[in-house]
Amino acid sequence: MKTIKIAFHGENAANFRQGFEHLVDARHQIVDLSDALTAPGESDHYATADVIVGIQLNRSLPEPAEVKLFHAPSAGTDAIDTSLLPSGAVLCNCFGHEDAIAEYVMTALLQRHVPLAQADADLRQQRWTFWAGRPSALRSELGAQTLGLLGFGHISQAILARAKAFGMRVTVANRSPVHDARVARQYGLDQLPEFMASADAIVVSLPLTSQTKGIVGAEALAAMRSDAVLLNVGRGPVIDEQALFDVLAQRRIGGAIIDTWYQYPTPTQPECPPSRLDFASLPNLLMTPHMSGWTSGTVRRRQETMADNIRRWLDGQALVNVLHGASK
Amino acid sequence: MKTIKIAFHGENAANFRQGFEHLVDARHQIVDLSDALTAPGESDHYATADVIVGIQLNRSLPEPAEVKLFHAPSAGTDAIDTSLLPSGAVLCNCFGHEDAIAEYVMTALLQRHVPLAQADADLRQQRWTFWAGRPSALRSELGAQTLGLLGFGHISQAILARAKAFGMRVTVANRSPVHDARVARQYGLDQLPEFMASADAIVVSLPLTSQTKGIVGAEALAAMRSDAVLLNVGRGPVIDEQALFDVLAQRRIGGAIIDTWYQYPTPTQPECPPSRLDFASLPNLLMTPHMSGWTSGTVRRRQETMADNIRRWLDGQALVNVLHGASK
Repeated sequence: MKTIKIAFHGENAANFRQGFEHLVDARHQIVDLSDALTAPGESDHYATADVIVGIQLNRSLPEPAEVKLFHAPSAGTDAIDTSLLPSGAVLCNCFGHEDAIAEYVMTALLQRHVPLAQADADLRQQRWTFWAGRPSALRSELGAQTLGLLGFGHISQAILARAKAFGMRVTVANRSPVHDARVARQYGLDQLPEFMASADAIVVSLPLTSQTKGIVGAEALAAMRSDAVLLNVGRGPVIDEQALFDVLAQRRIGGAIIDTWYQYPTPTQPECPPSRLDFASLPNLLMTPHMSGWTSGTVRRRQETMADNIRRWLDGQALVNVLHGASK
Repeated sequence: MKTIKIAFHGENAANFRQGFEHLVDARHQIVDLSDALTAPGESDHYATADVIVGIQLNRSLPEPAEVKLFHAPSAGTDAIDTSLLPSGAVLCNCFGHEDAIAEYVMTALLQRHVPLAQADADLRQQRWTFWAGRPSALRSELGAQTLGLLGFGHISQAILARAKAFGMRVTVANRSPVHDARVARQYGLDQLPEFMASADAIVVSLPLTSQTKGIVGAEALAAMRSDAVLLNVGRGPVIDEQALFDVLAQRRIGGAIIDTWYQYPTPTQPECPPSRLDFASLPNLLMTPHMSGWTSGTVRRRQETMADNIRRWLDGQALVNVLHGASK
C-alpha cells in the first residue's frame, strides 16, 4: 500500500485532528502545522504533503507542490485560491453541520414558547407564575405555527424533519422546484414577499452568491407578519444589513435570531461587533456568534468525510464534495 | 333538538369557557359559576345543570341533581367524589396536553446543548465565545444521545416522535410490553436500575398510583449515568422526594428538570415552596411550576373533547374518556 503525508494546516484544521489517525491507515504520516508555517521544517512538510487539510491557500504561503487532495474541513472555501493548486490537484469541502444547525434552530424557536428560565427563577422565589390553570400562564405552541424555509439544501431538510415532528406547517422558497410532500406550499425566489408573509418563522439558509446578496431586503422584510421571527443561519449579507436593523429597531416584526453576520473577528482584532450598526442595542434580537453548526458531531462527520475521501483517492475511486479538479 | 344547560364551575373551568359557545349548538344555555357558588342564583344553576364542567365535587357543594355528564377539563379527577353524582351520571376527563408537554421536554433537553443565552450576552459585549472553529466552543448534540421514557402513554409517544426526528436512540420502561419499532430497547418496571442506566436523559411521565409512588427511589437514581439528566412531567411523588434531593445535592447525576412537585399552593397559601426540602438551593436543577402541559393548544383540544362528548351524549353515542358511569 502507498503511504502518504497528510498535513493539518492551521488552527481551524487542528479542530479536526484529534483521533483522525484512527480513521486512516496507521502507516500514513500526519503532521500538524501552524498557520504561519514559520516553525522549523513546517514549510518543507507543507511543500511535500500529499493531502492538505486547511481553509487557506494564498500567495503568502509556500507552494503546495506535491498536494493531490486539498481538503477544506468546512463548507466555505472562499480563502482557498485554487489557481495556486498544482495541476491535477483536487479541492473538496465538508458538510455534516446540518443536524447541529437544526438543533440550534429548533432550540431558538422552542424557547420563544416555553419560558423555562423565568419559570425557574420565579419558582425559586416560591412564585408559581406559569402554573397550569392560571389564565395568564397559558403559552403558545410551536407546533401550531408555520415555518418558512428560504433555501432548501441540507440544512433546511434537517430542519424540516424536526419541524414536522412537532406538527408544524412548512413552506419553502427556493431557486428550483422542491419535490417533498411535507412542504405545504412553495415559492420561487421571485415571489419572496408572498413567501415571507406565509409563515410565523422564516429561516434563511441560503449561501452567499451574487444572486443571494441582499435578497432579503426592505421589501421582503416588510411583507413579514408583524409577530413573525426571522432567523439567519446562512450567510449574513443574504439579509440586507440596514433593512434588518431598521425592521427590528422599528419593531415591525416579532423578533430575530441571527447567527451569521456582516463583520467577523480577525487575528489582529479578536473582539469586534458583528456589524457596523448597533445590533447590540436591540432587545428583540437573539444574537449568536456563527455557532449554529459547531458541534462535536459536526467535527466527527467531517473527519469521516475527509478520511473517506483520502481512502477513495488512494483506491482510485471518485471523491465526494469536489469543488475543483477532476473527481477521480 | 333538545337544549340543555351547561355549567362551567369555578376558576379552573373558566379557562376553557372562552369560545366554547361556538363549539356547541347555539341554543344551549351556558352559565359561568364561581367556585363557592355563593352569588345569587348560582346554586340553582348548579343543581339544574345537565352538564357540569369542573374539577371539584364534594359535600360542601350543592347536590348536582340533574347532571348527566360531569366533565373534568383536566386529566386528573381526584377532587371529584363520584359517590355524589346522581345515578346514571357519567364522569369524563380530558387529555390533549401531550403535544404541549413534548414541547416543554424537548426545549428543556435542547437548551442543555445550545447555550443561546450565554452566547447572546457575550456577543453583545463583542465576545465571540462560541464561534465555530474555536475548540472550546464545541458543543454536544442532543441527537447523539439516548432518551429513556419511563411510562409509555400519550405523553411519551409524543416525545418519542420528536426525539426520533432528532436522531435520538430511545429506550422505554413500562408496565406492559411496548410494540413500537422506534424503541431500541424496553424494560419492565421490575428492571428499573437497568433502564435508568440505559439513557442520557430519563423522562418520567407515569401517573401516580399506589404502584408508582416512590418507584424512582434511591436504588433507581443510583443506577443513572453520572452525567445523565432526570425529568419529571408525570406526578411529583413518583420520584422519592428525599432520594431526588440527595442525588442532586451530592451531584451524582448531571442534573434534573422537575415540573411536578410534592407541595402545591392552596387558596389560603398562594405562594409556597414545592417541597419540604430546599430544592431552590440546588444549582443543578431546573424547577418549573407544573406548567408543561399548559398551552392554548391544550385548552383548545380539551374544549373540542368536551364539546364532542356533549354532542355524543345528545346523539346517544358512546362518549370518550369515560372514568365513571355508563359510556352510552
